[in-house]
Amino acid sequence: METSPTREVASERTALLRSTASAPRVVFTTILTRSPISRIDVARHTGLSQAAVTKAVSPLMVAGLVADYPQARQQGRAGRPASPVTVVPEALVVIGVKVNTDEVIAVATDLRTEVLHRARLSLTSPAPEAVVEAIAAVCDSLKGALGSATEVLAGVGVAVSGDVDTDTGVVRESALMRWTGVDLGARLHRRLDLPVVIENDVRALTFAEHWFGVGVGTQSFAIVTIGRGIGSGLHVNAEVIEGAYGVAGEIGHLPLGPPQRLCSCGRRGCVEAVAGTAAIVAAVSAAHGRAITIEEAVTLAHDGDPAANAAFGEAATVIGTAIASLVNLIGPELVIIGGEAVRNFDLFDAQLRAAFAAHAFGAAAECRIVVRPHSFEDWARGAAAGVIRSLVA
Amino acid sequence: METSPTREVASERTALLRSTASAPRVVFTTILTRSPISRIDVARHTGLSQAAVTKAVSPLMVAGLVADYPQARQQGRAGRPASPVTVVPEALVVIGVKVNTDEVIAVATDLRTEVLHRARLSLTSPAPEAVVEAIAAVCDSLKGALGSATEVLAGVGVAVSGDVDTDTGVVRESALMRWTGVDLGARLHRRLDLPVVIENDVRALTFAEHWFGVGVGTQSFAIVTIGRGIGSGLHVNAEVIEGAYGVAGEIGHLPLGPPQRLCSCGRRGCVEAVAGTAAIVAAVSAAHGRAITIEEAVTLAHDGDPAANAAFGEAATVIGTAIASLVNLIGPELVIIGGEAVRNFDLFDAQLRAAFAAHAFGAAAECRIVVRPHSFEDWARGAAAGVIRSLVA
Ligand SMILES: [Zn+2]
Ligand SMILES: [Zn+2]
Repeated sequence: METSPTREVASERTALLRSTASAPRVVFTTILTRSPISRIDVARHTGLSQAAVTKAVSPLMVAGLVADYPQARQQGRAGRPASPVTVVPEALVVIGVKVNTDEVIAVATDLRTEVLHRARLSLTSPAPEAVVEAIAAVCDSLKGALGSATEVLAGVGVAVSGDVDTDTGVVRESALMRWTGVDLGARLHRRLDLPVVIENDVRALTFAEHWFGVGVGTQSFAIVTIGRGIGSGLHVNAEVIEGAYGVAGEIGHLPLGPPQRLCSCGRRGCVEAVAGTAAIVAAVSAAHGRAITIEEAVTLAHDGDPAANAAFGEAATVIGTAIASLVNLIGPELVIIGGEAVRNFDLFDAQLRAAFAAHAFGAAAECRIVVRPHSFEDWARGAAAGVIRSLVA
Repeated sequence: METSPTREVASERTALLRSTASAPRVVFTTILTRSPISRIDVARHTGLSQAAVTKAVSPLMVAGLVADYPQARQQGRAGRPASPVTVVPEALVVIGVKVNTDEVIAVATDLRTEVLHRARLSLTSPAPEAVVEAIAAVCDSLKGALGSATEVLAGVGVAVSGDVDTDTGVVRESALMRWTGVDLGARLHRRLDLPVVIENDVRALTFAEHWFGVGVGTQSFAIVTIGRGIGSGLHVNAEVIEGAYGVAGEIGHLPLGPPQRLCSCGRRGCVEAVAGTAAIVAAVSAAHGRAITIEEAVTLAHDGDPAANAAFGEAATVIGTAIASLVNLIGPELVIIGGEAVRNFDLFDAQLRAAFAAHAFGAAAECRIVVRPHSFEDWARGAAAGVIRSLVA
């Protein structure tokens, strides 16, 4: 495929964002996340002068990234037109991919992470080679669907569970994928000939919420995901916490469980070793003396099976305790629980909240806990948001 | 005492900082924490235009808060003078007070929290009335020492252990002081006729490090204090984490200990219920069947007494586990351990680091752990920093 010549427009637009001083990037980010917005409000929000905002907006308009907002001809406070501007969502498109052990889920989105096209593909194996080929295949499929819009394709974001070094594109450790030191970014860049951004999956989801979800209205929140992995993403003081060494939000590996529980990460007493899907399945299977699936464990719990109820109860208690720990340390405005296990949140709800209440310290207990089902497609959108963020960071 | 008329200069200067738009406050904060600094570097650091910086500096100079930096007549890159400016540290003075159960420790400092005068007073009781009177007495003593500099006294900061609502000045819960819902700010304001800022003590220390200590050189750090209380202050993305509901950094109340341990906060299994001074003293006393002081417990441990070694070892393990939990969630560049127990850090060192290594996740383990003895005077300086911060926040 001759991707290079057709991607000139994308290259020009991303180069503008990458090459300029910080003010235009800050201005673009503000317009991106708050469109439509008047230049006056951009100045207010960024702390820049109105002159500096006007100066920064001009080349963004020439490049087609920003446009005058057509409808509103409202009057500003001084009687002048407020002259709102808006991002041009279709000025760039990105591809976001969520990697699971058994499939890759991909979306092509515009600059506001609105999904334009979808693709998913089962994996023959969770080995890096198989994952690279599957990602290449879904990208080809999405490029076909994008057609001429491929010329504004800015890059591919990939969300993977585990300890990911976004700067180098290396997945240092992924217990879920059973990977150690996989240079996924370099491999994909060679294969795709496109900019590639590798991101921890929960952090990717947090970026998407930060820019286009609850983050717009709150100063701080945490996303806690429950299911195969237990993870979290943290947004405090209006910034995502990334960790000085690339690790943060590892709520699944807080040692709040019994030390005899061995985690897939090799450590003892991790939350995930009690509350992850594999741990629940193992506990119910052991009690019944046969292999039981998670779907069956859910049914058993709903039918009042004591072993299944005990396993979900223990999981709920350690998750609630972990959320209290997070809240005691960071004090977010709200905690959003997501991940595939929220489909059966009724099995967690009461004991999770009781454990949270028992251990939340003082006024930190006022933190609201809300449940929001995120589909795997939402995770792929998070990966797309990671690419957009890389353009302006 | 007729404090009001003599404090006109302080009122004018603080009103300037309080009343203006955000740009001058941001400019002043940058000059305060990075003096001497050129206007160009202020612009670079704040993202403001040079014109905006010059405009903001002018009234600060007129008010005597900022001055031209006399020595340097270096040349800027374009051959123009770099014209550095500097904060005038003595333009305002503040008083900082650390409240303990048995005494109050106070300092008068300049704007850079350099200590000008000291005062301390034993408490007859930890009751709020006794504390208010003791604080009033040390403030009187410091005002006498300040003499004519009292006219630039901007306010009094008070650092207290526990859940403190800085906005309202209410100490909501202090297990150490055995206070619940004490409106210390209002009481002191009535008594002192000065602006009063009440702050959680560890957070006050974190602010001081953030502005005038390690924070200047790092993007993120955590302070963990060990001793009577176990606390922490967090500085991430160059901001202190304050908690949406005023609670953050409560590492002492993470439920990482055995559930049978009852904490002074009323919860079960808290770190402080294993590793606080009272817990260590209780464990060694129980083993020996008599009341043993912390000093004696330290001596016993150094002499190889098994019960004392077990108590310090258990404390060290739970503190190391708690630090790993903090690091897994937040990923700071470094952790600074302070608090009065660091005098005997040899009794904690090996087991604390072993527990940290066992539970730190992936690259988060690269986080350095350093020990820095903070005196109670450093905590009082932290309270002073809280006042300075309130002037520009
Ligand atoms: Zn683990
Ligand atoms: Zn406690």
